[in-house]
Amino acid sequence: MSMNSPTITDIEEAASKLAGIIHTTPLLTSRTFNAQSYTNTFFKAENLQRIGAFKIRGALNKIRSLSDEEKSRGVITFSSGNHGQATALAARLENIKCTVVMPEDARDSKRNATQGYGAEIATAGTTSEDRLNRAMELQRQFGYTLIPPYDDPYIIAGQGTCGLEIVNQISDVEAVLIPVGGGGLISGCALALKSKLPSVKVIGVETEGADDANQSFRRKKLIRYDKTSTIADGMRNLSVGTLNFEMMMRYVDDMLTVPDTDVISMMRFFFERMKIVVEPTGAVASAAIRVHNERFRNKKVCAVISGGNIGVGDFFTLLKN
Amino acid sequence: MSMNSPTITDIEEAASKLAGIIHTTPLLTSRTFNAQSYTNTFFKAENLQRIGAFKIRGALNKIRSLSDEEKSRGVITFSSGNHGQATALAARLENIKCTVVMPEDARDSKRNATQGYGAEIATAGTTSEDRLNRAMELQRQFGYTLIPPYDDPYIIAGQGTCGLEIVNQISDVEAVLIPVGGGGLISGCALALKSKLPSVKVIGVETEGADDANQSFRRKKLIRYDKTSTIADGMRNLSVGTLNFEMMMRYVDDMLTVPDTDVISMMRFFFERMKIVVEPTGAVASAAIRVHNERFRNKKVCAVISGGNIGVGDFFTLLKN
Repeated sequence: MSMNSPTITDIEEAASKLAGIIHTTPLLTSRTFNAQSYTNTFFKAENLQRIGAFKIRGALNKIRSLSDEEKSRGVITFSSGNHGQATALAARLENIKCTVVMPEDARDSKRNATQGYGAEIATAGTTSEDRLNRAMELQRQFGYTLIPPYDDPYIIAGQGTCGLEIVNQISDVEAVLIPVGGGGLISGCALALKSKLPSVKVIGVETEGADDANQSFRRKKLIRYDKTSTIADGMRNLSVGTLNFEMMMRYVDDMLTVPDTDVISMMRFFFERMKIVVEPTGAVASAAIRVHNERFRNKKVCAVISGGNIGVGDFFTLLKN
Repeated sequence: MSMNSPTITDIEEAASKLAGIIHTTPLLTSRTFNAQSYTNTFFKAENLQRIGAFKIRGALNKIRSLSDEEKSRGVITFSSGNHGQATALAARLENIKCTVVMPEDARDSKRNATQGYGAEIATAGTTSEDRLNRAMELQRQFGYTLIPPYDDPYIIAGQGTCGLEIVNQISDVEAVLIPVGGGGLISGCALALKSKLPSVKVIGVETEGADDANQSFRRKKLIRYDKTSTIADGMRNLSVGTLNFEMMMRYVDDMLTVPDTDVISMMRFFFERMKIVVEPTGAVASAAIRVHNERFRNKKVCAVISGGNIGVGDFFTLLKN
């Protein structure tokens, strides 16, 4: 792989490396959703992926690309969310040491899940800066390799395998909607989709309270926010990554936003009608099919459900309002 | 079909009649569940079936067996639960009139779902006797055909198609666990399973507070309770059906019970680890693999998830305790 922007070959190589270890997640459908939205929609169910989110794709591809010497020293990352669990599992699968830096106020459920995959937890303050500093410090001290969450060609190529699966599963898909946090998933998937099916429209979706990527896309320069405000915790990054932004500008056709309230309605629909658990970020792309319905009518559409990691209590707290 | 006990041929004919209309539901697996239980378990996901439960299999098979004259007069049933929705959808698919008798205190969500499938709702008191009487009255008045919930050869043959799918999907399954309410699912599935794979053990599961079928099975006579007390609303019947009991005595190997608390833990596991929504009755068979673990260790086991119809609020109320 080149040191810079990944290519479709890198994604295909990643797919070979991941085959038999990660799941080829199913495409789910709902007659009711289709009837209500006048679409033919397929939900790419990465909530049913190992660790409950697409993040294992990138983390495992990255870790498998390390040299034996790097592997022997171990890896580190900073995340209380899906990327932390993904890195922990990927490291365990490769039988290498893993440290995950978490905030002091991380939920027990997140901490337990990450420890459950065999990672060591280091705690550091409550801000992302605290965690980054602590991770860098441990990295210097022990020679760990940092596994970044999105701004990395191996991570992007790994996430792109999700896009490759989509074109293999629905060869005539007309539009694919992808949630945008740091941009790892959309940059990899957009490259895969456009390479294999140039006619497909690739659309990124954010919530209104965290629309930094949308602003970056429209102004054609990488915008960094001071803060974001959304229930979609996977979208609380203040900006997308540099490499992710470059790739988005090349391969993504459009960006959309949806209100948090529509994300919640979508989560309820997934629960009550489709019997699946979807975390807020995971419901954002699907919600856009309803919110921006006129764009998708009579089309064959795929929305990526990025993950399903949410506790019962948090789920209910969101939905009861 | 004979007027009495259905045969494997009846189930195979039902499968042909239902093909392309109902889903062949997937078998789901969890590495974590297998590691914790020392089993190789497959969950038959009837919560992902149309109407969110297996009940559409029997209702549609029954309705498709009616004469044109019977169809022209319409059908009636009494159920505020999955059988009501199943009958409503089956009738709509066959383009015939359907009335569902519900208690006055039925939840709006149940009423709306049933109406959503195009059925007419008739209300009658709050007891099952009230509903039965009202249904019989309407039946006499309008010549409707009653679609019974379980004690009927066509209903049983329809539910048995679920068992047929299981042997087609895992040809070397060693034990199949099936929840028992009125006995429609287990009697049909046991016939299918034993006919196709005589070595398989078929095990019925109930909650401790509604173990009438377990008692009937052990005492070898049909027991009728005065009341039951369980969170598993699909098991609140006071007894299994006559035909169902006869078939259970012939084809079922054993019966087990589980406490409600273990059903709740199982629902939590399905939600948090497998990202699927399972109603209480739907989690009963799976819970038995944990509660009676010694019997299933190192075995290839299938547990039927009978349904996933539960509102967000009810789900949380159960799990928060």
